[in-house]
Amino acid sequence: MNQAIKIVGAGLIGTSLGLALARKGVIASLSDHSKANLALAIEYGAGIDSSVEPDLVIVCVPPDLTAKVICEQLAEHKNAVVTDVASVKVSIANEVQLQAASDSARYIGSHPMAGRETAGPKGARADLFFARPWVITPNETSSSARLELVTELALMLDALPVVMSAQEHDGSVALVSHLPQLVSSALAARLSSGSNADLNLAGQGLRDTTRIAASDPDLWLQILSQNSASIGPLLVEFSKDINNLVESFQNSDESSSLAVIHSLLAAGNHGVSAIPGKHGGKYLEYKTVTALIDDSPGALAALLTFVGEIGVNLEDIKLEHSPGAAIGLVEMQVLPAVQEKLMAQLVQNGWRLA
Amino acid sequence: MNQAIKIVGAGLIGTSLGLALARKGVIASLSDHSKANLALAIEYGAGIDSSVEPDLVIVCVPPDLTAKVICEQLAEHKNAVVTDVASVKVSIANEVQLQAASDSARYIGSHPMAGRETAGPKGARADLFFARPWVITPNETSSSARLELVTELALMLDALPVVMSAQEHDGSVALVSHLPQLVSSALAARLSSGSNADLNLAGQGLRDTTRIAASDPDLWLQILSQNSASIGPLLVEFSKDINNLVESFQNSDESSSLAVIHSLLAAGNHGVSAIPGKHGGKYLEYKTVTALIDDSPGALAALLTFVGEIGVNLEDIKLEHSPGAAIGLVEMQVLPAVQEKLMAQLVQNGWRLA
Repeated sequence: MNQAIKIVGAGLIGTSLGLALARKGVIASLSDHSKANLALAIEYGAGIDSSVEPDLVIVCVPPDLTAKVICEQLAEHKNAVVTDVASVKVSIANEVQLQAASDSARYIGSHPMAGRETAGPKGARADLFFARPWVITPNETSSSARLELVTELALMLDALPVVMSAQEHDGSVALVSHLPQLVSSALAARLSSGSNADLNLAGQGLRDTTRIAASDPDLWLQILSQNSASIGPLLVEFSKDINNLVESFQNSDESSSLAVIHSLLAAGNHGVSAIPGKHGGKYLEYKTVTALIDDSPGALAALLTFVGEIGVNLEDIKLEHSPGAAIGLVEMQVLPAVQEKLMAQLVQNGWRLA
Repeated sequence: MNQAIKIVGAGLIGTSLGLALARKGVIASLSDHSKANLALAIEYGAGIDSSVEPDLVIVCVPPDLTAKVICEQLAEHKNAVVTDVASVKVSIANEVQLQAASDSARYIGSHPMAGRETAGPKGARADLFFARPWVITPNETSSSARLELVTELALMLDALPVVMSAQEHDGSVALVSHLPQLVSSALAARLSSGSNADLNLAGQGLRDTTRIAASDPDLWLQILSQNSASIGPLLVEFSKDINNLVESFQNSDESSSLAVIHSLLAAGNHGVSAIPGKHGGKYLEYKTVTALIDDSPGALAALLTFVGEIGVNLEDIKLEHSPGAAIGLVEMQVLPAVQEKLMAQLVQNGWRLA
């Protein structure tokens, strides 16, 4: 990629982009209204402070500032393609079209589906985009050359470009990201009514369902409020199911109520099975092999060394700990074809299976 | 423990109990109305088919049969203490008191907080109870000797006995287990409205929030319907929050609506922070070190061997894969004190950090 790239906003995503580009030999020009952030990002090696005229500007500012900064950049760099990284696309595209008029043809929205809990340049990492979907949302006026420039950027950073309309994008993330965030937050919010005795009985199920409820409220308010058109209807459907449940629990001795609850549980089974697994395919029916290890340095490694030595590839792995335990259960997911081999070899070599 | 133990019901929990007891040198007497399950459990080494008069009977049948079988066992074994393992306690205790009259003083409810997705004796494992809470729910008529017998059982199996009333138990699990199950199922049920394009953008957040929605609807219907008194009010509160969100999303340009959404997100933050972490303490602020590995046999093991060799203990580990990627991100959680050492040593030895 020979084009000059400018990154506006040296936060988590902007700095990560700069680092990822630098690794590929492309030194971006960085800008940030915070001199401290900018200096830190430059020190990290995410780019330089340069006034070279860019071919491509990547706007990496918070969602509620994104449209405004896109318009400023379109006005400032009359030949550049401008893209952004915000996790909502319709509202931004609309505002850019309204404010930037004919310049808006040079704007192509994008959304690298990457992030982490740690915000700011300190959380940046060059591999943030590696093998993640990178949604690109051209509109009718986007020329193929401009679309190609953004696609090339995604590919250079080892991301997986996915082209869809801004509407499609916002609908998809409403379902797979924004609704889960709201539901997880609402569930976790209920825990405030719990006593220590209640919460001491918490297991992995509660931890998994509420993990994302630890996300930054300020950032998420921006995201959610800009995608209310797509989230609203999903939330209405979800609330109908919940309100039906409320009614069913009030009349839980009636068979019609039990049918409502059972049907929701079954629909949940069906929904989970629709989530694609690793490698983009539908979940293979991985088999679980569970081994017991001491909670000490090297114990897990010794197990996995052995697994590697016998040539078994783990599709997934989970460590399970219990309150007060000095031992861990290692749940290894493997392809069905190798499950028996793995179990037999582990037992033969003195590992404890659970 | 010198008492004779009888296990009624050779499913996942009953067979696991038998295996765990056998490991401690206690051979339980097993019974099951399914001759096939019984034969399998005995073959596994979970106990024997014996008519020795038991001192302690553990009823391990599905929740909707538990009270009936407890009463039968109380009648059959006039000197035995009878306990059970069902994940609801009030409805069972009430029915036992009603049906078994004075015999009911020999019933002491319990609930080992252990389970797994794989049902039946085939899923059994001797370590199922290791370091898990084992709730014991005596009533006013329970003698301390009988309570001690059940407590001794839990301790012998390396579980953590927690004594509370049946009411307290049902309230606690309604909050930390039953409500999350319903919410996760309701969220996953929404995915049926999604297209492949939507679901291809699914990330770890969606997978975590919906994992338990894969649970068995038949078993959960029994559990949930027997705890409707505790679940109902929680569900009402949850539905209020959701209905407020629905309203806020319909008027998302008003600042009062934004305040509602923000306040729920913030309450979610607060709720998550109340969940105790590993080793029974509040979550330590573990630090994350993320390394990149090839998706090949031995790659993860090589990394963890190295981590073990430098004496670093992993508190948790997560493999992250992306659709289409042939590489994995390994997120290692460590105590804050060792984060820098781990990162430095990894880099010095040629590992790629992300």
